[in-house]
Amino acid sequence: MKKPVIIGIAGGSASGKTSVARRLVETFDDTNTVTIIRQDDYYHDQSHMPFQERLKTNYDHPDAFDNDLLIKQIDDLAAGKAIEKPTYDYVNHTRSTITEVVKPCDVLILEGLFILEDDDIRSRLDMKIYIDTDADVRFIRRLKRDVRDRGRTIESVCDQYMNTVRVMHEAFVEPSKRKADIIIPEGSHNEVAMDLLLTKISSIIDSKKKTVD
Amino acid sequence: MKKPVIIGIAGGSASGKTSVARRLVETFDDTNTVTIIRQDDYYHDQSHMPFQERLKTNYDHPDAFDNDLLIKQIDDLAAGKAIEKPTYDYVNHTRSTITEVVKPCDVLILEGLFILEDDDIRSRLDMKIYIDTDADVRFIRRLKRDVRDRGRTIESVCDQYMNTVRVMHEAFVEPSKRKADIIIPEGSHNEVAMDLLLTKISSIIDSKKKTVD
Repeated sequence: MKKPVIIGIAGGSASGKTSVARRLVETFDDTNTVTIIRQDDYYHDQSHMPFQERLKTNYDHPDAFDNDLLIKQIDDLAAGKAIEKPTYDYVNHTRSTITEVVKPCDVLILEGLFILEDDDIRSRLDMKIYIDTDADVRFIRRLKRDVRDRGRTIESVCDQYMNTVRVMHEAFVEPSKRKADIIIPEGSHNEVAMDLLLTKISSIIDSKKKTVD
Repeated sequence: MKKPVIIGIAGGSASGKTSVARRLVETFDDTNTVTIIRQDDYYHDQSHMPFQERLKTNYDHPDAFDNDLLIKQIDDLAAGKAIEKPTYDYVNHTRSTITEVVKPCDVLILEGLFILEDDDIRSRLDMKIYIDTDADVRFIRRLKRDVRDRGRTIESVCDQYMNTVRVMHEAFVEPSKRKADIIIPEGSHNEVAMDLLLTKISSIIDSKKKTVD
């Protein structure tokens, strides 16, 4: 099995990066062919910390992520080995005891806020994509989602946005756009850009098939 | 013959848009398959104006272009008719008497400063690309080119840049980036983006061949 082609998708909170990654995977139904790894599953294990301490973590900072584990698992997949991907327990704010087996694949999609920000992750990417959606549109999506799905108050969503989400975006996410090979406005609603990516992934899969035959 | 796929490539002066368009065409050697039309060839005919008047034209403003003719010729090519493309006489600052025959093609690439700015041109595009190169890099390329190839003084290049090129860029070119389907940093040196576009064009040509077969 040849090394997978690794595609990184970054962008701000609620920019649409998860939707883009999902559309790419869903189009190629066989899960061994195109696989997503989400950086969000790699939040640090905080089981050694008291619950009240865990609430103080800045989850919008790059240091909140266990990138050492993420990189090890990228390298394992690249070497053709299956991994046991961690999952995160958002209720208890720590790593869950559940892991998910991810098998080697032809195309590996890494998706997350800081996928282009970290030098060691970035150096492993064959294609670097930044989803560029205006900050006000992103905030409105986040507000609706957090009030509807997470029972949050408008005030708490606004405070968190102004105090951490926005500050971390300006410091770490927006500057990482400079590292992108292509910038896609508006995410998965952008049919022309989606078609361009899907055509490329089809072509990668076809050429991998030919190598095997 | 099916309607060609029309790809628009815009971006600031010296952004690299011409190099991108050329690489796309050169890769597909047969000139009936992929063809470039440059907006620069459609500067208005100024033969009715005295030479001194012609020098006063703002060549960095959208009104300097004969977009009516450009649109008519796009529509002719889209309808499978050959066109006689104008050429421009930069010495006499008016349309040349020489025209070039352009035959119908599978993929038509339109390249120029204001290709995404004009509503009527933009509505004809199947893919809208903006080449995004930093302003200082673009200025340095322009300075070197104008001093070396056109015998211009540093002062005249700087004055023109500050008085018209930069002002028109901010007013008309940069805002048109909002209309793009994909934004490509750095132009033709961006191998990942070039590969994405070349893969898409190959796929268009293949599917047109199948339709004919």
